[in-house]
Amino acid sequence: MDFSYSQRCQDYLAKIKQFMQQHVEPIEQEVYEFMHAENNHGDWRKWQLHPRVEELKALAREQGLENLFLPDSTLGKGLSCLEYAPLAEEMGRCLFAPEIFNCNAPDTGNMEVLYHFGTDAQKAQWLTPLLAGKIRSVFGMTEPEVASSDATNMQAHIDIQDDEIVINGRKWWSTGLGHPNARVTIFMGLSNPENDRHSQHSMVIVPLDTPGITINRMLTAYGDFDAPYGHGEMTFDNVRVPRENLLVGPGKGFAIAQGRLGPGRIHHCMRAIGMAEKALELAIKRGLSRVAFGKPLVKLGGNGERIAEARMLIEQARLLTLNAAWKIDNLGVKHAMVDISAIKVVVPNMLQQVVDMAVQMHGGAGMCNDFPLARFAAGARALRLADGPDEVHKGMVTRLELKRYV
Amino acid sequence: MDFSYSQRCQDYLAKIKQFMQQHVEPIEQEVYEFMHAENNHGDWRKWQLHPRVEELKALAREQGLENLFLPDSTLGKGLSCLEYAPLAEEMGRCLFAPEIFNCNAPDTGNMEVLYHFGTDAQKAQWLTPLLAGKIRSVFGMTEPEVASSDATNMQAHIDIQDDEIVINGRKWWSTGLGHPNARVTIFMGLSNPENDRHSQHSMVIVPLDTPGITINRMLTAYGDFDAPYGHGEMTFDNVRVPRENLLVGPGKGFAIAQGRLGPGRIHHCMRAIGMAEKALELAIKRGLSRVAFGKPLVKLGGNGERIAEARMLIEQARLLTLNAAWKIDNLGVKHAMVDISAIKVVVPNMLQQVVDMAVQMHGGAGMCNDFPLARFAAGARALRLADGPDEVHKGMVTRLELKRYV
Amino acid sequence: MDFSYSQRCQDYLAKIKQFMQQHVEPIEQEVYEFMHAENNHGDWRKWQLHPRVEELKALAREQGLENLFLPDSTLGKGLSCLEYAPLAEEMGRCLFAPEIFNCNAPDTGNMEVLYHFGTDAQKAQWLTPLLAGKIRSVFGMTEPEVASSDATNMQAHIDIQDDEIVINGRKWWSTGLGHPNARVTIFMGLSNPENDRHSQHSMVIVPLDTPGITINRMLTAYGDFDAPYGHGEMTFDNVRVPRENLLVGPGKGFAIAQGRLGPGRIHHCMRAIGMAEKALELAIKRGLSRVAFGKPLVKLGGNGERIAEARMLIEQARLLTLNAAWKIDNLGVKHAMVDISAIKVVVPNMLQQVVDMAVQMHGGAGMCNDFPLARFAAGARALRLADGPDEVHKGMVTRLELKRYV
Amino acid sequence: MDFSYSQRCQDYLAKIKQFMQQHVEPIEQEVYEFMHAENNHGDWRKWQLHPRVEELKALAREQGLENLFLPDSTLGKGLSCLEYAPLAEEMGRCLFAPEIFNCNAPDTGNMEVLYHFGTDAQKAQWLTPLLAGKIRSVFGMTEPEVASSDATNMQAHIDIQDDEIVINGRKWWSTGLGHPNARVTIFMGLSNPENDRHSQHSMVIVPLDTPGITINRMLTAYGDFDAPYGHGEMTFDNVRVPRENLLVGPGKGFAIAQGRLGPGRIHHCMRAIGMAEKALELAIKRGLSRVAFGKPLVKLGGNGERIAEARMLIEQARLLTLNAAWKIDNLGVKHAMVDISAIKVVVPNMLQQVVDMAVQMHGGAGMCNDFPLARFAAGARALRLADGPDEVHKGMVTRLELKRYV
Repeated sequence: MDFSYSQRCQDYLAKIKQFMQQHVEPIEQEVYEFMHAENNHGDWRKWQLHPRVEELKALAREQGLENLFLPDSTLGKGLSCLEYAPLAEEMGRCLFAPEIFNCNAPDTGNMEVLYHFGTDAQKAQWLTPLLAGKIRSVFGMTEPEVASSDATNMQAHIDIQDDEIVINGRKWWSTGLGHPNARVTIFMGLSNPENDRHSQHSMVIVPLDTPGITINRMLTAYGDFDAPYGHGEMTFDNVRVPRENLLVGPGKGFAIAQGRLGPGRIHHCMRAIGMAEKALELAIKRGLSRVAFGKPLVKLGGNGERIAEARMLIEQARLLTLNAAWKIDNLGVKHAMVDISAIKVVVPNMLQQVVDMAVQMHGGAGMCNDFPLARFAAGARALRLADGPDEVHKGMVTRLELKRYV
Repeated sequence: MDFSYSQRCQDYLAKIKQFMQQHVEPIEQEVYEFMHAENNHGDWRKWQLHPRVEELKALAREQGLENLFLPDSTLGKGLSCLEYAPLAEEMGRCLFAPEIFNCNAPDTGNMEVLYHFGTDAQKAQWLTPLLAGKIRSVFGMTEPEVASSDATNMQAHIDIQDDEIVINGRKWWSTGLGHPNARVTIFMGLSNPENDRHSQHSMVIVPLDTPGITINRMLTAYGDFDAPYGHGEMTFDNVRVPRENLLVGPGKGFAIAQGRLGPGRIHHCMRAIGMAEKALELAIKRGLSRVAFGKPLVKLGGNGERIAEARMLIEQARLLTLNAAWKIDNLGVKHAMVDISAIKVVVPNMLQQVVDMAVQMHGGAGMCNDFPLARFAAGARALRLADGPDEVHKGMVTRLELKRYV
Repeated sequence: MDFSYSQRCQDYLAKIKQFMQQHVEPIEQEVYEFMHAENNHGDWRKWQLHPRVEELKALAREQGLENLFLPDSTLGKGLSCLEYAPLAEEMGRCLFAPEIFNCNAPDTGNMEVLYHFGTDAQKAQWLTPLLAGKIRSVFGMTEPEVASSDATNMQAHIDIQDDEIVINGRKWWSTGLGHPNARVTIFMGLSNPENDRHSQHSMVIVPLDTPGITINRMLTAYGDFDAPYGHGEMTFDNVRVPRENLLVGPGKGFAIAQGRLGPGRIHHCMRAIGMAEKALELAIKRGLSRVAFGKPLVKLGGNGERIAEARMLIEQARLLTLNAAWKIDNLGVKHAMVDISAIKVVVPNMLQQVVDMAVQMHGGAGMCNDFPLARFAAGARALRLADGPDEVHKGMVTRLELKRYV
Repeated sequence: MDFSYSQRCQDYLAKIKQFMQQHVEPIEQEVYEFMHAENNHGDWRKWQLHPRVEELKALAREQGLENLFLPDSTLGKGLSCLEYAPLAEEMGRCLFAPEIFNCNAPDTGNMEVLYHFGTDAQKAQWLTPLLAGKIRSVFGMTEPEVASSDATNMQAHIDIQDDEIVINGRKWWSTGLGHPNARVTIFMGLSNPENDRHSQHSMVIVPLDTPGITINRMLTAYGDFDAPYGHGEMTFDNVRVPRENLLVGPGKGFAIAQGRLGPGRIHHCMRAIGMAEKALELAIKRGLSRVAFGKPLVKLGGNGERIAEARMLIEQARLLTLNAAWKIDNLGVKHAMVDISAIKVVVPNMLQQVVDMAVQMHGGAGMCNDFPLARFAAGARALRLADGPDEVHKGMVTRLELKRYV
């Protein structure tokens, strides 16, 4: 359990911080406003990336700051999960920063899938442009008609034939579906109902322009489309792709998902800690600068205590996340599953509480888009459901705990 | 402390329930979708009321179901605050129902101000069309540049001259400002800095088409514009109105506000209890109909307990609200101030918790606009700030509690 | 839902308050010290009632203030449950006051059982001296070897023969077992395993001096024996009583228990509200009189907010309790079961939180017996388990809530 | 931030675990019963140490397992704070284990004071027998007449004369005062009122048999005397000791206290984590073995979730504590003050919650002394006050947090 930041990690952290300060923070408010302007509402066909974001993506790449999430030292930077943690946290402070460093969800998870499970051809076709930041991808798992907390409820059907695969079904909460660069989805569905419970599903790579795919709509998350990063709903009606698009093999969906969701979840948590730090910073700055009843807000009633509570929650959540990262690095994802479940519960709930406090300290300003707090709140709320709701992850922690005694 | 519903109250309740069931519920989803469609986003100039809402307003009026909030038996229906409570709760179950019964914020509060404090001319000009549901009004109190939790921070300036009044300042979170029928605001500002702390401010009636008023923008509340009911920001630049538009007299702003905010706050709480009931109903229906791991969601883990907790919180919050209503009726608003502060803390926090539980039970569906839950969540969150943040109201309860001992 | 205090109720309340102030408060600390002195520890055979308590019992009776809990107007005072509520609350402020008014647990519950279900002979033998305050009684239900939250787990065996009843088993948490006046127990056990789940148990009246009964020990509750009122463990080894000692009939145990526990639970809650009021009063007095960092404690950090929160919790809990009392009076115990379950969860949890706050405000003094707070804390903690744990009562609330939808 | 356990630490941990399993656990229940037997109640003059505890102290010493807390490699074992953490945690699982390893409060803190600040003569006279486990010591800081959360409130008076020191005052919550081996106290009081706020107090070593000292009583903590380890009250009436008994110098009390309380607080937290682990273990074992409504308790309602929540709270609290230990080792106590404050809030609150859950899972058994849970609860509650209440430590965290911005 050595959570020290390696020299390499410290170097990257210094660079990322400098980049954020020099390039991201100055345009932060402008980009946020752009994200909430008229053209970025319900009609996702009009969604755009702010032009400065594209420029900064290129700049980050020039400085060697892209794909930091990928442990591979050729394709990524060879950073361990623990080394990546403070970097992801730093990116998490700004809603659009992860994309600048090509470290945004769900692409990181999808790239990990392709990296670990893709054939050479699959890698050449999809991993390469994803790593290059030229395209973006989505993930089709959650379905509107069933309780997706139990993934075996999945109804989408994948018919694996000799030459091709025929897909039918509806998916939603596909993050990034409305992004102008979205090109491909990894799609999970029921393919082998004859197998045992966790070998019935497969994953297939499907280009988004394949005939039969309809993008039905983008979804608001607590009122916000979060353009161009938000979540969409899509229908697959006899969508046909070549059999080569199958990942690993028939019935391997769950096995891949386990591998995919572990890192995906911890990356979410790392970024969420960054959000919490930013929220606390905003709360303190507001609380120090606004005066009521003759005192700065932070000196009134329980406000000071709430700042201490936020700090203590954040520190604990961060340590728990570093601990999970260390276990992933040293024991493997499989042996860190319960730790990942634990942070997946702890971190979003911590974020929700810290952000709620920060909103309260801001008054009305905290509710609207003058500050990123409302979007952080939506992010926290969503994260208590995405990639498994609190209840499922608590169940995992309980199960392991009880196992020690039986 | 007799909280029994009078016969009159029961009759109105039955009618309102029937009206809701027969006329409102069938169009609920359609209107919600309309409220979130493209035309109802940031550009408030395009905001529209759904045509069926206008029709139902007329129908409600035909059935004698308008203005139930006003205790006056000629202009309103002569209902006490306690009698109005279950009616407002019923309306609160649907976001646009209050308007149908001409019982929506901030009009009810403004009508109470005009009713209690307006001159005959002021009443004729503004109260009459408001009661008739022909126009809508806003309230200009909160300001973006100061901590408005301390109302004495207010910077807007009201210069009361012999014949006219000149107003300068900026207000936000003016609810209803973007509504197509919005015509007038009650505006509060600093007029008599020479007076003691609570006699420095005045209230003035200002038509929204007065030169010098700029509507700057509509604000999102947790991502949602809540068109056409949402909140706006407006600037007053040397806005001139006749001296007759002054309410009561110079420096009477706080005195009026006390009278206005009491009923306004309790109405908010009554509606919030209706929202909580609706959220709990949705949670249970979802929890009974969706199945995971072989059981309906309500039977899994702590879900059942959380339903019980929601029920117990709602019952307590309702009783506390009825108690405050009873005190307003029987002892007067002044003697119910601490009770109003108490419900103003208890009810929105209860709603926030109940809605959060309901969202969790719905999974992703709870986050988006397929259900009204995200908007309820925004409503709950906003209500912990609007008309005085939790902290200020807790402070009021503390003060009264300590007073017993010194 | 008329919670107004009747004139009769107000008169009794005034008398009880005066009695408390004049007679109980002056000896409160002295009696508390006596309760914790050497002779009142583990060796229950030495337990004594403070002589002043016996005197005050006589005085209360002279003033017509005994047996207020019993609705019967001849044997009790004919007070409704709602009328009794504020009286019980007043008594609850002092740990030994209920006994002074012959309104203490578990006697009140036992007297209700005898009153409603006893034969004339049973009443003559046991109800009469209990009402006269000459003896005390216990209730044998909970067992050490099983999860008693599920009452059907009960293992004690009642063999109902032609002439006599033979009882075997072990019971604990029998409140009042160590009291010098304890003479009789109502004992519940398995008698008719051939019947359906809720008709297998019977209740029998058993004098405590019957051969075969061993009082094993007194139990501490959070460290305190609460002498002479505390809880004991007893073993029944072939204990024989005449068949006439059977209550109602074979297999009627659960039916009687339902009737018994309803009022017993609400009385507990009423007294608990009195404890919470007393705890809050102590917290404020301490918080106003002790100074740290230049200010009275109540003005420091979140202390003021916590007082407001306590006040709001107490008010809500009281209203919920009055509501349950009103339902018992107006709809019958059966129709108030869910309301009783709700207060049985809400009130002890509220008390635990309020007392914890009061302890914190007192510092070390709150932990020790210089104040009654530690005993209130133990009482609150015990009450979250006694007469059904939180979880079982929440389950009842959930069940009723779900029933509305299926 | 390397929290790995060194080889040396792992070796000690293995030995301690084996010792606990082999020698302590088998007598645990017996000793607990002894601690609560008649002779161990209010009359502290009769308090005894269980004879087996004395034997095990000797045995632990034989095995080189004593004084593990002291970083000195000659007098202690040369373990860092981080290395000591898992050992203290292990000891914390049993209430009397720390004494067996001569690592109990308040002796460890007092030994640290003597070690760091004592003269050679002071060390020879007091540190040597303390390290040898021949005597025990107490600490006189908290006073009954003032809010001791603000240490400058202290009223005890220390008159430092040329040859001798004259002490007057009253102290309470002096842990260990009733222990049969208690021989000496470190006493803090006001000596130099002319100095600035944190240089007015001094610390003096006072043998407990010095004339003028009266031990007034032992105090219950949530009902329990916790004999022979509990807390006492003592009065100093013109107590005279030689000037050589002064620690460091006049007015150095606060400086010493800072040094003393840091390690003392973290040792408390380490042991508290062990208590929490033990409580969780007991909860699970009980929850798996007791059946209600046809299922083991852990499978009912929210019980499973609460186990997960306990696990997640414990893990976070432990990591935060290790982090503070690491900072003490690597940056010095001074630079870890805020981290120590943070764990001093987080850990006892976590323990209180985990123990409360465990009590609930045990039903009545959790309330009484059949399990150590009630004593853990008292320990948790006391620890939220001892060595500075939650509020003071939160204030420290807030202060540091705000300092970053001003």
